Amino acid sequence: MARIAVDAMGGDFGPAPAVAGAVQAATRLPGIERLYLVGHEQAIEAELRKARDIPPQIEIIHATEVVEMHESPAVAVRRKKDSSISRCVDLVKADRADAIFTAGNTGAAVAATTLKLRTLEGVERPAIAAVFPTQYRPVVLLDAGATTDCTPRMLCQFAVMGVVYAMEILRVSEPRVGLMSIGEEDAKGNETTKEAFRQMEKSSLRFVGNAESKDIYQNRVDVAVCDGFVGNVVLKTSESTAKAIRGWIREELESRLVYRVGAWLARGAFARIKERSDPSFTGGAPLLGVNGICIIGHGSSKQQAVFNGIRVATQSVDHKLNPHIVARLRDTFGNGS
Amino acid sequence: MARIAVDAMGGDFGPAPAVAGAVQAATRLPGIERLYLVGHEQAIEAELRKARDIPPQIEIIHATEVVEMHESPAVAVRRKKDSSISRCVDLVKADRADAIFTAGNTGAAVAATTLKLRTLEGVERPAIAAVFPTQYRPVVLLDAGATTDCTPRMLCQFAVMGVVYAMEILRVSEPRVGLMSIGEEDAKGNETTKEAFRQMEKSSLRFVGNAESKDIYQNRVDVAVCDGFVGNVVLKTSESTAKAIRGWIREELESRLVYRVGAWLARGAFARIKERSDPSFTGGAPLLGVNGICIIGHGSSKQQAVFNGIRVATQSVDHKLNPHIVARLRDTFGNGS
Repeated sequence: MARIAVDAMGGDFGPAPAVAGAVQAATRLPGIERLYLVGHEQAIEAELRKARDIPPQIEIIHATEVVEMHESPAVAVRRKKDSSISRCVDLVKADRADAIFTAGNTGAAVAATTLKLRTLEGVERPAIAAVFPTQYRPVVLLDAGATTDCTPRMLCQFAVMGVVYAMEILRVSEPRVGLMSIGEEDAKGNETTKEAFRQMEKSSLRFVGNAESKDIYQNRVDVAVCDGFVGNVVLKTSESTAKAIRGWIREELESRLVYRVGAWLARGAFARIKERSDPSFTGGAPLLGVNGICIIGHGSSKQQAVFNGIRVATQSVDHKLNPHIVARLRDTFGNGS
Repeated sequence: MARIAVDAMGGDFGPAPAVAGAVQAATRLPGIERLYLVGHEQAIEAELRKARDIPPQIEIIHATEVVEMHESPAVAVRRKKDSSISRCVDLVKADRADAIFTAGNTGAAVAATTLKLRTLEGVERPAIAAVFPTQYRPVVLLDAGATTDCTPRMLCQFAVMGVVYAMEILRVSEPRVGLMSIGEEDAKGNETTKEAFRQMEKSSLRFVGNAESKDIYQNRVDVAVCDGFVGNVVLKTSESTAKAIRGWIREELESRLVYRVGAWLARGAFARIKERSDPSFTGGAPLLGVNGICIIGHGSSKQQAVFNGIRVATQSVDHKLNPHIVARLRDTFGNGS
């Protein structure tokens, strides 16, 4: 049974998708004991009135402030004590909630959870795990942007967290770990990845060596590890390349009548690709390594994305993700590290 | 007038594309005073016999060894004194050639030129400039893999080299420089990029601030600067994402007859996209910052790619790329840096 705090104010579209997604989750997902909607009370109530039935697990927690997308996370967390994301974290800290879902400012979620909940035993810094849809099975890339400057040891900790997430939530048995680098040869990389390579090689991880972006798509790794700067670049480059190609294809297909006819005939194929690569089905990215569950949705999350994010949060609680991470960290690198 | 040394052995397809591309270049490009084909004499002669006329500027330089793609660059350059890439560099060092084109081991080209020719005045480390085809105009991304661990000052030097390349070779007036980072806000990035941001802001560069991959595609920057680790990741992620999407589209379009008919009608549109995004038209990536011109082609370069690479090498010599880089470095950061 899980108690979930939903940041109702964080996303680009205000409280509407958060409230609708939360109502849907409380109605349809088993195992939700309590679901807090955190944010401006009146705004949330107005959205709740649109629902046919309000599930009994739902409770509003009033918060007067919102961290906006453009705000500096560290400053916002310090100054806006009564922001919706801070109040969500407070609920976890007071053991009134087990998990958070937010589609708000990512940096603020990282800063608030790390400051107030601290990291798990054996974890120095948190990491955001992005789940990549591929033609085969989903691949976990971490860190996708929580910790930009990493030591080799932090990368090893990320690897373990990614492995546990892949096993518990994505149901991958014995996940293969690749270290994101700039060539497959052992000796390639920068100073940090070269040292991380040596440490992973000695560990009990199922380490397949250096990996490149193509290995994510070609089913060679299940968990791809890198620092938050590189991971964020990979994530955004793949998103923007995909978008640019879609735009380019659209432009070409509209340039002549015969192409437009062809595209119309094949429209079902394009719709399927769009659906399969839609990020709202992965349900947001978990922030791993903090002492609590926090799932971070895209700023543009709609109801379906919020629903899926709450689903992943519930699963993470049910599967005891964090205790597993702590235990696995002890096993993987032994006492020395 | 330019004298070009072509590494005839380096690519994946042996000397055939290098020799054919060189013959085409010597025949069709004005301003080639001499064109050395460097590599195994008999293999090159055998290829040359396939040409109708052998242009008088062509001269074979015998080299007994080849650096293979999988070899460690540093080791290969030290041990294989008579490799085709080393001999190319020797020709530049002896002032018999002005520029090199190679489709061989990238690391070996970087190591050999850096060791034997040294870097330009004011340049601490070289950078590979990758030219991205976009819907708008080409964008220079550097470093794409020569220097994996960079200081802020090296990033600033890369920026200047990229600006000069964009102006002289891509004919962009007043190129806009973006610093690859993980968000547009000034404060985002890692320790190195934050300091580089401050230095670029104070310089006379047309600095537009932090940039993300989407800015490359959306015509917000002309020059995107990052370390060689990140740049290589961007390049390979965009390539592998594009490839994965093409594969995905193909799979969906083949799944039903009506889609296949649609795809057939629209085949001209797909062919145009393929052509416009074909890397062989950009003519390889220049290695900037060494005391000589070196253009690095893709390992899979065919005749057309070699021809374009030689064209870019010739332009770089004609436009006095390196003297411009040295002068611009002095101007941009003043005496202090």
